[in-house]
Amino acid sequence: MHNLKNRGCLLTQIEVIAIGDEVLSGFTPNTNAAFISHILFDRGYRIARHTALPDEEDPLLEGLRGALKAQDVVICTGGLGPTVDDVTRGILAKLTDSTLELHEEVKKRLQLRLGLHFPLLDEQSTSPSKATPLHNPMGTAPGLFFQLGKKLLFVLPGVPREMEAIFPEVLRILEAQFPPPPQERGAVLHFFQIAEIDLDTALRAFPKTKVGLYPHLGFVTVRLLGEQVEQARQELSHAFGSRLFASPSGSLEEAVHLACINNKLTLAAAESCTGGGVSERLIRFPGASEFFKGSIVAYSNEIKEKLLAVNPSTLLKYGAVSEETVVEMVRGLLPLMEVDVGVAISGIAGPTGGTLEKPVGTVCFAAMRRGKEPVFSTLRFAGSRAAVIERSINHALAELLKIIILEK
Amino acid sequence: MHNLKNRGCLLTQIEVIAIGDEVLSGFTPNTNAAFISHILFDRGYRIARHTALPDEEDPLLEGLRGALKAQDVVICTGGLGPTVDDVTRGILAKLTDSTLELHEEVKKRLQLRLGLHFPLLDEQSTSPSKATPLHNPMGTAPGLFFQLGKKLLFVLPGVPREMEAIFPEVLRILEAQFPPPPQERGAVLHFFQIAEIDLDTALRAFPKTKVGLYPHLGFVTVRLLGEQVEQARQELSHAFGSRLFASPSGSLEEAVHLACINNKLTLAAAESCTGGGVSERLIRFPGASEFFKGSIVAYSNEIKEKLLAVNPSTLLKYGAVSEETVVEMVRGLLPLMEVDVGVAISGIAGPTGGTLEKPVGTVCFAAMRRGKEPVFSTLRFAGSRAAVIERSINHALAELLKIIILEK
Repeated sequence: MHNLKNRGCLLTQIEVIAIGDEVLSGFTPNTNAAFISHILFDRGYRIARHTALPDEEDPLLEGLRGALKAQDVVICTGGLGPTVDDVTRGILAKLTDSTLELHEEVKKRLQLRLGLHFPLLDEQSTSPSKATPLHNPMGTAPGLFFQLGKKLLFVLPGVPREMEAIFPEVLRILEAQFPPPPQERGAVLHFFQIAEIDLDTALRAFPKTKVGLYPHLGFVTVRLLGEQVEQARQELSHAFGSRLFASPSGSLEEAVHLACINNKLTLAAAESCTGGGVSERLIRFPGASEFFKGSIVAYSNEIKEKLLAVNPSTLLKYGAVSEETVVEMVRGLLPLMEVDVGVAISGIAGPTGGTLEKPVGTVCFAAMRRGKEPVFSTLRFAGSRAAVIERSINHALAELLKIIILEK
Repeated sequence: MHNLKNRGCLLTQIEVIAIGDEVLSGFTPNTNAAFISHILFDRGYRIARHTALPDEEDPLLEGLRGALKAQDVVICTGGLGPTVDDVTRGILAKLTDSTLELHEEVKKRLQLRLGLHFPLLDEQSTSPSKATPLHNPMGTAPGLFFQLGKKLLFVLPGVPREMEAIFPEVLRILEAQFPPPPQERGAVLHFFQIAEIDLDTALRAFPKTKVGLYPHLGFVTVRLLGEQVEQARQELSHAFGSRLFASPSGSLEEAVHLACINNKLTLAAAESCTGGGVSERLIRFPGASEFFKGSIVAYSNEIKEKLLAVNPSTLLKYGAVSEETVVEMVRGLLPLMEVDVGVAISGIAGPTGGTLEKPVGTVCFAAMRRGKEPVFSTLRFAGSRAAVIERSINHALAELLKIIILEK
């Protein structure tokens, strides 16, 4: 079996720990670990383990001690807020044989930002004596850095924007003491509307290449490392080239964004069951106003008729979820929004509303370029309401990509 | 310190493990652990630990052995696909002293679904001899259940919709062998547009109540357990009642959904910088068509003028990001969409486009009920483009809630 493995003996062992019942109780997905790991992975580090531990003394102390024993670097998030459910500071003092001390410099900085009467100023300025505070420009709790012999322990706030603001400083300290390994030459490819298994079958011809296949809803990312990377890349590009898309971030919306800007095309969407989700994805990248003009979220039939000029008899005869309706939606959209490219989506996201003929998960799509005929299709997606919506958004983005890339 | 702690000695110890480099490399956030933990938490279970481990024999075996030693129940996700980067099956055989065997029943079921010529049919039908396969209605890899003495080990596919489809069977086996503890009487409250610290300060009057504070972008969830829950709940409702919202799922969109339906109001949005995000949130709950008619995503000024009847001179004089513009947007929206309630949002999400007068993060809002005057405001949000958009969406939803709840 081939894999994106730790290979050398000199790899830095890194564990990322989330502290807090909000993660353990499933209330908050652990996006902090994903953020941290993604950045470290891109620099060439490999992460040995993610852990989430409760806001509770015994298991937290035990988990932190275990991590510090096994790893070179431990990066924790959460548990530093000023509020009554945060206990981490005291536990960190115990863990590092420190006393809790008031940091005058941290207090001064907080006073300057928040005024003299900010409640709990002293609590937020108190940390274990062995900790170096890391400035938090986005919030009140500083990050903490402990140099424990050769090992590094970082403790960052759990609020993502605060953690993200402090993280560059963590990276600076980490890279100074544990430089990242030289990067292996690899390749990352993204394919839309293709099954993981087809890519897998093609890649079996390259047993020396380490392969990572990451299926998403509607597209697959392939990472290649090790030997024969270039040959494997060429084989995939040759076999599935019409489904290959370019996106540094690995997202369909970025691929559409780049394709529109490169081809100087403007775009709009007419969304029913996706309710604005296609548009929201298209504005995630800065500079979207260069190609994206706007959308009509036509959730009700009245809006489909009034704004998109869908014929009431089409709705009556074929229903709102029909290829006839989405074709009229996209035909109405392009002149209304004065754009070059558009997509229309109408479907039954569920959990109710399905019929024998059109079960839940049935979604119709029409994509169109100005001056050409619409391209339409009907798909049946499995899964929850959220999954049907997510897959519909991805399919709509892929349909846009197809008409932009293939109909040049 | 008060907390949502494990208290009894009879609590079932449960660990949720994600297997795979896609989680460890930060490529995929560990939403499976959140899904599983949320359901278990609601049933009264407490989760001892989340872990993510690599697709690699030594650390994976070590991690699984450690978990099985420490816990009563271990639930793994990932590593069961048919593709070349999945190694879990062999490791599970080693872990449980099993041989790998072809399950004829699983193979037959797969053949019925996928045909005789589905590639890798044998691989997907092979599992350790001590495993009981758990039927996967959504995909090809069955889940695996191991009864190891008194301990339970579940291994589920990593694709969320497949894992979610198998999970009810996991819950059935778990509840039969480890019944959940009797639920403590608790309370969950949600407040919008309020600082965590204000809630915290009020809750210090109830030292015997165990408090969990979960800040989100734009709202805070409070969980109360233990003693004096009712008194603490009343105190918070009294002090911050105008900011309290009702939502079983703890989301502003559900609160707006319920408030609209209860008050028989229809709704639409006019979105610029949020690009459809408010609308997409409003259709997440089934039955949205009862109140939500649609939206105009007016990303460009032309669309603001053409569809929402914003005066070109307003855009020229005050700019697209101004209270004057959002007020005209919402005034144009209500008659266009023929709705009772609407909200308009226009802002600078960044990272560029800011000025000295209107820095990045400046966002203007106007909410309006038919026949009343618009309520408008300007906020400055910190953080990344994604954070500004997310906070703008939450603030727009909160503004809608306010005019629906308070202007009755």
